[in-house]
Amino acid sequence: MNLILLSPQDIIAEGCAVVRDPRRLRHLRDVHRVTPGARLTVGLAGGQMGKAELTALSDEQATFHFEPLAETPPPALPVHLVLALPRPRMLARTLEHVTALGVKDITLLHTRRVEKSYWQSPELMPEKIHQHLVLGLEQARDTQLPDVTLRRGFRPFVEDVLPELLANRRGLVAHPGMAQTCPRALTEPTLLAVGPEGGFIDWEIDQLLAAGCEGMHMGPRILRVETAVTALLARLF
Amino acid sequence: MNLILLSPQDIIAEGCAVVRDPRRLRHLRDVHRVTPGARLTVGLAGGQMGKAELTALSDEQATFHFEPLAETPPPALPVHLVLALPRPRMLARTLEHVTALGVKDITLLHTRRVEKSYWQSPELMPEKIHQHLVLGLEQARDTQLPDVTLRRGFRPFVEDVLPELLANRRGLVAHPGMAQTCPRALTEPTLLAVGPEGGFIDWEIDQLLAAGCEGMHMGPRILRVETAVTALLARLF
Repeated sequence: MNLILLSPQDIIAEGCAVVRDPRRLRHLRDVHRVTPGARLTVGLAGGQMGKAELTALSDEQATFHFEPLAETPPPALPVHLVLALPRPRMLARTLEHVTALGVKDITLLHTRRVEKSYWQSPELMPEKIHQHLVLGLEQARDTQLPDVTLRRGFRPFVEDVLPELLANRRGLVAHPGMAQTCPRALTEPTLLAVGPEGGFIDWEIDQLLAAGCEGMHMGPRILRVETAVTALLARLF
Repeated sequence: MNLILLSPQDIIAEGCAVVRDPRRLRHLRDVHRVTPGARLTVGLAGGQMGKAELTALSDEQATFHFEPLAETPPPALPVHLVLALPRPRMLARTLEHVTALGVKDITLLHTRRVEKSYWQSPELMPEKIHQHLVLGLEQARDTQLPDVTLRRGFRPFVEDVLPELLANRRGLVAHPGMAQTCPRALTEPTLLAVGPEGGFIDWEIDQLLAAGCEGMHMGPRILRVETAVTALLARLF
């Protein structure tokens, strides 16, 4: 927790916030081991960041005071990530990694090799997804929550949604066996599609290429989804 | 398990291997769901890879037959990774990520902000480390086990070991606040030093720079060690 992300309900008066949830209180006590007087980095969800002073700490709450926050959060990556829904534990970790790396638009997509049961996982409940996004922001010192959209149909996504997303973005599909290697140091708006364990099926690749995506690969190694996504984002941007 | 890594004791005759350990048997049955006749990718630890036929499968063992294996494993990354010892669970995952990415030389180093208790973790026992390396190789379809060295003293490492490592390698230290951004697409032999959660202390950075390393950074975001290492390797190579 390199930043304490303050939601509107944490702010009790101008320049004063109170944190009451057990997770953050425990972290402040057991990891930061802070006492009143300590100065910590805070940020307003969706807003500015800066230093705040811990003015009181009890078993029930931590109180912070701060001057108007003047620091802007770090820049976002210019990418819309379209990710075949990973299995639940992998999803949790991947959401944290990509949020920490600065992704702000995430579509979780059904594809042929996504197990249907994954869509029933409690990890997909909005509050669970929110938790992982917050962990990623707290790690990276960022305040801008990513937007996560669930798409349970591949064909409707490709036919009805993808064309609009590609209207002002360069589309890339990471897939073994494509001719192009992963490009580097992009600054233009990009859409990155990443398949499930086992990959997209040929028909899905054909559809994505037909919609205007370029195929590219990361080399001969088969990577787990969480490793692959982090590696792709680091190389692309 | 995208490759079945065969150790010398798995080979019972030329072109014939028997796998008996419960982990791999369970994976073959429950994940691959194979039956005799299936063709799977196998590789000899430290050697060649290729296809093998599963000729028998019982509760106790799986028998494979294969022609001489002709495929060479994927190329390694030209990097010696010097990593401040992460906390045990992070270490486990990081070893799997970096092995999958192709790192072959890993030094786990003590630094000031590494908790001393981490050195007592069972995750550091050679057989536990070996397990994670094998998982990384099985994931990426590789047969070349990385070499892992433990260095419990920062000063002896910097004074006695680092100069020799840097004799024929470009040294890089990833650290927030350095002037240079992370270079890209290197092909030369490289040493990459990555600090612990909380970073190297100033004295350690001074020592690493004095020894000939260049400082560089990955941007304003603070990343977890496992995310940072994957991102650094993907950007550097």
